Amino acid sequence: MNRRKALTLGGSLLAALAAGMARSAIAADDTAKDADQATRHEVATYAPPVDAFLALAEANKPRLNETVQAPLGLIQPVQDAAQPLSWRIETVGSADAIPGKVLKKGDSLIIDFGGHRTGNLSFHLEGVGRGVDAPARLRFVFGEVISDVAEPLHPYTGSLSEAWLPEEIVTIDYLPQSVRLPRRYAFRFVKVEVIDTSPNFGVSFRQIQAHALTSASGDLKPLPSGTPADLVRIDEVAAATLRDCMQTTFEDGPRRDQRLWTGDLRLQALTSYATFKNADLVKRCLYLIAAFPRSDGMVAGCVFEYPKPAHGHEFLADYAVFFGVTLADYLEATGDMETVRTLWPTAIRQLEVLKQYVGTDNVFAAPKDLWVFIDWHPTLDRTAAMQAIYIYGLKRLFDLGQKLGAASDVSDYAARIKAMEAAALQRFYDRKSGVFVSGPDKQVSLASHAWMSVAEVGTRTQRKQAFAKALATKDVVRPKTPYLNHYVVEGLLLCGLKSEALATLRAYWGGMIAAGADTFWEAYAPEQPRTAPYGDFHINSFCHAWSCTPSYLLRKYSFT
Amino acid sequence: MNRRKALTLGGSLLAALAAGMARSAIAADDTAKDADQATRHEVATYAPPVDAFLALAEANKPRLNETVQAPLGLIQPVQDAAQPLSWRIETVGSADAIPGKVLKKGDSLIIDFGGHRTGNLSFHLEGVGRGVDAPARLRFVFGEVISDVAEPLHPYTGSLSEAWLPEEIVTIDYLPQSVRLPRRYAFRFVKVEVIDTSPNFGVSFRQIQAHALTSASGDLKPLPSGTPADLVRIDEVAAATLRDCMQTTFEDGPRRDQRLWTGDLRLQALTSYATFKNADLVKRCLYLIAAFPRSDGMVAGCVFEYPKPAHGHEFLADYAVFFGVTLADYLEATGDMETVRTLWPTAIRQLEVLKQYVGTDNVFAAPKDLWVFIDWHPTLDRTAAMQAIYIYGLKRLFDLGQKLGAASDVSDYAARIKAMEAAALQRFYDRKSGVFVSGPDKQVSLASHAWMSVAEVGTRTQRKQAFAKALATKDVVRPKTPYLNHYVVEGLLLCGLKSEALATLRAYWGGMIAAGADTFWEAYAPEQPRTAPYGDFHINSFCHAWSCTPSYLLRKYSFT
Repeated sequence: MNRRKALTLGGSLLAALAAGMARSAIAADDTAKDADQATRHEVATYAPPVDAFLALAEANKPRLNETVQAPLGLIQPVQDAAQPLSWRIETVGSADAIPGKVLKKGDSLIIDFGGHRTGNLSFHLEGVGRGVDAPARLRFVFGEVISDVAEPLHPYTGSLSEAWLPEEIVTIDYLPQSVRLPRRYAFRFVKVEVIDTSPNFGVSFRQIQAHALTSASGDLKPLPSGTPADLVRIDEVAAATLRDCMQTTFEDGPRRDQRLWTGDLRLQALTSYATFKNADLVKRCLYLIAAFPRSDGMVAGCVFEYPKPAHGHEFLADYAVFFGVTLADYLEATGDMETVRTLWPTAIRQLEVLKQYVGTDNVFAAPKDLWVFIDWHPTLDRTAAMQAIYIYGLKRLFDLGQKLGAASDVSDYAARIKAMEAAALQRFYDRKSGVFVSGPDKQVSLASHAWMSVAEVGTRTQRKQAFAKALATKDVVRPKTPYLNHYVVEGLLLCGLKSEALATLRAYWGGMIAAGADTFWEAYAPEQPRTAPYGDFHINSFCHAWSCTPSYLLRKYSFT
Repeated sequence: MNRRKALTLGGSLLAALAAGMARSAIAADDTAKDADQATRHEVATYAPPVDAFLALAEANKPRLNETVQAPLGLIQPVQDAAQPLSWRIETVGSADAIPGKVLKKGDSLIIDFGGHRTGNLSFHLEGVGRGVDAPARLRFVFGEVISDVAEPLHPYTGSLSEAWLPEEIVTIDYLPQSVRLPRRYAFRFVKVEVIDTSPNFGVSFRQIQAHALTSASGDLKPLPSGTPADLVRIDEVAAATLRDCMQTTFEDGPRRDQRLWTGDLRLQALTSYATFKNADLVKRCLYLIAAFPRSDGMVAGCVFEYPKPAHGHEFLADYAVFFGVTLADYLEATGDMETVRTLWPTAIRQLEVLKQYVGTDNVFAAPKDLWVFIDWHPTLDRTAAMQAIYIYGLKRLFDLGQKLGAASDVSDYAARIKAMEAAALQRFYDRKSGVFVSGPDKQVSLASHAWMSVAEVGTRTQRKQAFAKALATKDVVRPKTPYLNHYVVEGLLLCGLKSEALATLRAYWGGMIAAGADTFWEAYAPEQPRTAPYGDFHINSFCHAWSCTPSYLLRKYSFT
């Protein structure tokens, strides 16, 4: 259950906001620093009521639920070229065997908790021997997947901070001692290596326990009866992924970054409505994002929660559009008009700021220094997909404006949608080949088709035929992330390509399960299970919220 | 100031003890485990009132005084073969320069606090850069001497636990963050290495501070005016050594072991009376030691304080004798008859237990499995020294018995002293060469002479001539520790060899200062400054209480 703090603002929310609470000086400074993030025409400045938004975010901060879990047993990894990650897991002892192991210098063991969780590790460490006359120095490695504990983490070759590597060296001065490691980890496996005890004693682990943390609550709504077993398993793993990313914000991944990203939030929120139904966490996250725009009002790609809320330094065009899309989804899921009205100015501000990049030809043309994400694929041409995303944003906010009685705010949207749709078909639809293309090399990608389908550009038949042709195109550019694969599956479903959608779901998410996933990964490619977007497979996140959407898709749509 | 807890025992101390408080089951079990420590005749069992003794120890537990200290500046070590430790210290920046340093992956700095302390390290860590988007992972190395931070600690080749190496890897998840490292260290230097931040930021240390901890209080009594400067410096370093070892017990060394040893306590207590005058800490330590004898009443060589008081597994003949010697010293320093009466049975018990090793020839002959320490010298023959120590114990307790009105407990001591002195002269004094010898090879050592002198065996002239001859003997076995060197200096003083005593003090303790000591070391040999009794110089303790006695010697004796 979530604890809902009483809102401490006096009077009505809107009245408080109208009182024009000043932004904190620090937040203003932070924002100023990012003023040079992207080349852009100076549009009017926009300053939200930061303190009020942060107070609302704080009021909706959930309590974390802790579940204490015993280990399943002891395992060892065995090299096996037939496995996607190159390792087979062999059980070498039950949980009952753990307290009997006396470990001395150089000894190690790998404990299997049987599934992924985000949380703490605790244990009672005993010294066993003639004299417990020194500290015990231990190294812990926390594994989300078997390769984490089967392979040395060093030398590290990644481009992201080595500080994210899930390892810890701990010195315990006095034994016996009950220890709860203070940092939080994401893990199924815990490898313990004894750096040293002393010649006079060894150590034994008693009561080693995981303390799983999540703000997810509520029972998972069951899938329709008769759902095939492989889809049931995909749903379980997807829901576990969301659960372990639901902390006091929707984190992108609990192992690394642990940040609230605007685009990721949209998928987490959708899946949350369909599963754990903790809509207050969505509300909190929307306020956190809305509290930290730069001076023109564009929201940051991500927000840090600790040590105090602050925005990241990245600003993404597509993610900015998703703020309003997420708000529209939120109203559909909750009916909470008051929150949506409060955040409405932020939502329409995003389309206003981005409008400067829509040329007289009605095509969205991002300058080089404006990040358009879409997917991690390194050579993906993002122009067509971004055009569709902008159109999608206009459509969703046009509808939302009507629901809010704020039609006057979006009075020009219908015309802009029409013009940008026409431009999209003219510029990106190749009549000869019957597919959408993007960029000077007329690149054919699933990204373009997914987004044209979701944004409903052109006729449904046109989209369906184009998508089917794209799927059959040799060397079509395929997603590198579950994030874009979500929109591929949804795009296929929306244009009626149900069996293709199901095949994609099975091949992609089912492929991760075959590779040993207990939660779905940040990055995966069926032809390259050990894809490493940051230059070292061990820095990948193996519980990444943007991959949780099968639990949404399997409840929202019929695949047959 | 020390906080003296009110004693919670009702009525008088002796009445409480007479009520026969039961030993705790755990302590009894622990003691039973060590019953096979040494071959010995079964003498009557002896069980002290453990709970009462522990309550008295707890009632005299001092509060630690914390002194917050700023660093002196930044240094770097420069290799220099002319230095005893092979390194020269170069200043490379003032303390003011520290906050301006922005450290990224692979960067390091060495902070000099200008002197040794035992305590904690705290700092405020800032992230500096475009985005603080990852934890900071840092490695700290705490140096008592320059070689600790100038040389890699690995690979480690020592025989003691590698867990004592003064290093720590710390991951700080959120910046800015104020951090106080939870473990206590012994250090003058702190080396910080950045394992990683992220490509987007570096870290800066603001307000890095040492929190020096000691239970020593009171002002140091000044040395006589006119004391030469080198002796004043020796006294400063000796007093700092005691101060940094005075925690909630007299620790042998704050870097490693951190244990209360019976023999070390005697020297710490003597120096404490002459300097900081915290006699309650001596009382606490005597009760801790007395609480945990083995079943025959022999006290352990050492006691652990945490996680709860317990004895170590070593039992040493000479250290057992020192329990009573320390008690006799304590009465002289404090006049506290009540405590001494309470602990008197433990004191005389040690000589009783050890009596079984005194043969019909009145020579103390330790069996192979009974540890007689004397010094760390590997080939020292300890027989003569142990004979003298036993005699010294008999003499001090005989006197103490008279003072306590317990003469009947020691009524046979005068005869035993006489017999053992005669045996000592007969067995160990070589009339031909005029020196004391020990063992089958007639080894000539300073150990034998020091102890014969302290125990006053033979005439003063005989001892003086023997000691002078021994000093001049080629290949005389010299001490490896400041511990035995203390008795050498005191022995020289007691038989009237003042200039030799002064020369030894200057050569040995002055030699450590010339080698860079801010506190005196566990082990040192002028001809081999990097002596490593445990196989790796980096595991040596460079603040070791048994080397603190110059502050006692310079106040107790006239060297001129």
